[in-house]
Amino acid sequence: MSPARLETFADGVFAIAATLLILNVDAQIPEDVEDLGAEILHIWPSYLAYAVSFVTIGIMWVNHHTIMGQVARTDRRFLFANIGLLMCIAFVPFPTRLVAEHVRGDGAETAALVYGFTMVLTAVMFNLTWFYASVGRRLLRPDADAGVVSGITRAYRPGPWIYLGATLIAFASPTAAVILFGAIALIYVLESSILGNTATA
Amino acid sequence: MSPARLETFADGVFAIAATLLILNVDAQIPEDVEDLGAEILHIWPSYLAYAVSFVTIGIMWVNHHTIMGQVARTDRRFLFANIGLLMCIAFVPFPTRLVAEHVRGDGAETAALVYGFTMVLTAVMFNLTWFYASVGRRLLRPDADAGVVSGITRAYRPGPWIYLGATLIAFASPTAAVILFGAIALIYVLESSILGNTATA
Amino acid sequence: MSPARLETFADGVFAIAATLLILNVDAQIPEDVEDLGAEILHIWPSYLAYAVSFVTIGIMWVNHHTIMGQVARTDRRFLFANIGLLMCIAFVPFPTRLVAEHVRGDGAETAALVYGFTMVLTAVMFNLTWFYASVGRRLLRPDADAGVVSGITRAYRPGPWIYLGATLIAFASPTAAVILFGAIALIYVLESSILGNTATA
Amino acid sequence: MSPARLETFADGVFAIAATLLILNVDAQIPEDVEDLGAEILHIWPSYLAYAVSFVTIGIMWVNHHTIMGQVARTDRRFLFANIGLLMCIAFVPFPTRLVAEHVRGDGAETAALVYGFTMVLTAVMFNLTWFYASVGRRLLRPDADAGVVSGITRAYRPGPWIYLGATLIAFASPTAAVILFGAIALIYVLESSILGNTATA
Repeated sequence: MSPARLETFADGVFAIAATLLILNVDAQIPEDVEDLGAEILHIWPSYLAYAVSFVTIGIMWVNHHTIMGQVARTDRRFLFANIGLLMCIAFVPFPTRLVAEHVRGDGAETAALVYGFTMVLTAVMFNLTWFYASVGRRLLRPDADAGVVSGITRAYRPGPWIYLGATLIAFASPTAAVILFGAIALIYVLESSILGNTATA
Repeated sequence: MSPARLETFADGVFAIAATLLILNVDAQIPEDVEDLGAEILHIWPSYLAYAVSFVTIGIMWVNHHTIMGQVARTDRRFLFANIGLLMCIAFVPFPTRLVAEHVRGDGAETAALVYGFTMVLTAVMFNLTWFYASVGRRLLRPDADAGVVSGITRAYRPGPWIYLGATLIAFASPTAAVILFGAIALIYVLESSILGNTATA
Repeated sequence: MSPARLETFADGVFAIAATLLILNVDAQIPEDVEDLGAEILHIWPSYLAYAVSFVTIGIMWVNHHTIMGQVARTDRRFLFANIGLLMCIAFVPFPTRLVAEHVRGDGAETAALVYGFTMVLTAVMFNLTWFYASVGRRLLRPDADAGVVSGITRAYRPGPWIYLGATLIAFASPTAAVILFGAIALIYVLESSILGNTATA
Repeated sequence: MSPARLETFADGVFAIAATLLILNVDAQIPEDVEDLGAEILHIWPSYLAYAVSFVTIGIMWVNHHTIMGQVARTDRRFLFANIGLLMCIAFVPFPTRLVAEHVRGDGAETAALVYGFTMVLTAVMFNLTWFYASVGRRLLRPDADAGVVSGITRAYRPGPWIYLGATLIAFASPTAAVILFGAIALIYVLESSILGNTATA
């Protein structure tokens, strides 16, 4: 399969997973709500969770294209690695809802752990996918720049550890872990807007 | 990332957000409804809200392509601006449902305000995205026509103010605000069909 | 906007509307169902409705490409006609569910009428869209074959009347109307498989 | 219609069907859950079912591209065969949920049978679609390699029988059947990663 077709399919999964997030917000307002104004304010964690997960999926989409920009060929193992990665990304709406609904209640720790481990697994799958494509330049473009390739490797490697750290904090304070999940996305956007802002055609 | 890939992803979000709107209509008819005929008539605001939001998302999709038609390159900041814009568009099904369910009840003001501010924010994101791309012709095609570029700027700038005006009217009359939301979409379609109807290949 | 981009967006709406149909089947089985085997058999109209609507949306998708195959340019009015058409197609899951749930009950007439008028409106929008593009060859390819163009016109024109006829029968017998909706799709597939089966690259 | 457009539409259905699977997991956790931690562990079959169906849909997506890689033209019958195939694939989220919810209860046999027969039908539709395109090389590329063509035929033919075998085991032990459904996907991934791992541009 051509890398372009894989990108089209992956783009579909990214777009759908991100757009489905709104269903979680929606489910928070029952049809027979009594005081809509109070309820709309009360579910504020749902809006935050929506925004954090939407931006996080957006970042992963950008990163997936960074990988694919270096890839010239695919094989079965690479396709299956991508299916595994997309399986993690399509899973994100579920822990997003858990965090939104339970961050203020008894289930906060569980919710933060499920969210965190989903992110750890996603970051692991990102590294696996990239490692498989790039080791020995297996599937890379012949003209892939060695500096860019090792730059991607360096950029992705800490991902699982960063999320693992944030996740383990949930045992001490679920709220702190959840704030960290948001901060990771925010810092990534800021850092990459300031340092990595090269225009490409 | 190439502008074409960004357009593909954005098209996915536009198409999904618009198609998910039907779930709101669907949720209005309980499975154990007694008098289906009466209920189908009773939920008429849901059909109107469906149509207004579908057309509004359709207009935004057309406008997004108008932007992208002038853009030759992307950078990280432009991608994140687009993710922010798409985050607003994927949010639209939620306030659409609030308006449909509450326009005739106590929650009308809240519903109209949530809908309106979603539109204000979306229009702001549209301006931000276009401003970032067009200021100093940062990401524009070298051959982008100066008249077209300033025409887009002039066309988008009033958007947030128009929606803000309509939204604030909700404090006086939520019904009037909701009628205005529909009228804005209708007037845009009519005006752009009459004045802006140039065929492009 | 290029016809290709319009096709991509339309394909997205067609694919999502068709795939969302399964949610209607799903909603028919409550989580705390007592006798799953009996319930799975009991909801057989849902499977039929799923199949009929999936195939009907599939036929519309094929027909939309038939239109777009003759179109070389787009303008604002054509885009808005398409948005109106897609608004009808994205609506289909709702009446599909009504028919599936109510064809055996008191709401059969209402359900058949809502389904039927949705199809009438969709067929009208198809004719409008094609009429706008083809009258005076406004948006057609310069080399569009006159015989093909008038063939499409002849093929689409009876659509609204056929569905209107089937819909009006619902006043006498909703079951007969629903059977006709299925038969229309089946006959179209058979006829077009036998008479219109030209291979294209 | 060009094979490329058919692939785009099919990719959309594959991506949406796979991404909708998460809604089944989501529906398993009620909003007013008392002990979230216990419930998250209790619904483990939902995670497994999600993974098995996601990977199975991913495999079908890869196989669909294998077919389309040999196809140069389409006709109406081939399009309808594809719509039938996609109708089966979009159906998968429903039996997936049945298995996840009922594998440990009275409905296990029913759930396993519905899942199994969906897979049998999907595999039959795959064979029909490929058979129609390949018999007498009807729609194939002129340069399609005879060895590759007969290789695809040999690879797909046992599919319905394998799934039929696994399905019939549900009469003796639903659990065994469900384990087999997972094992079929796993073995396919392993076998095709080891034996069929050719890189393509």
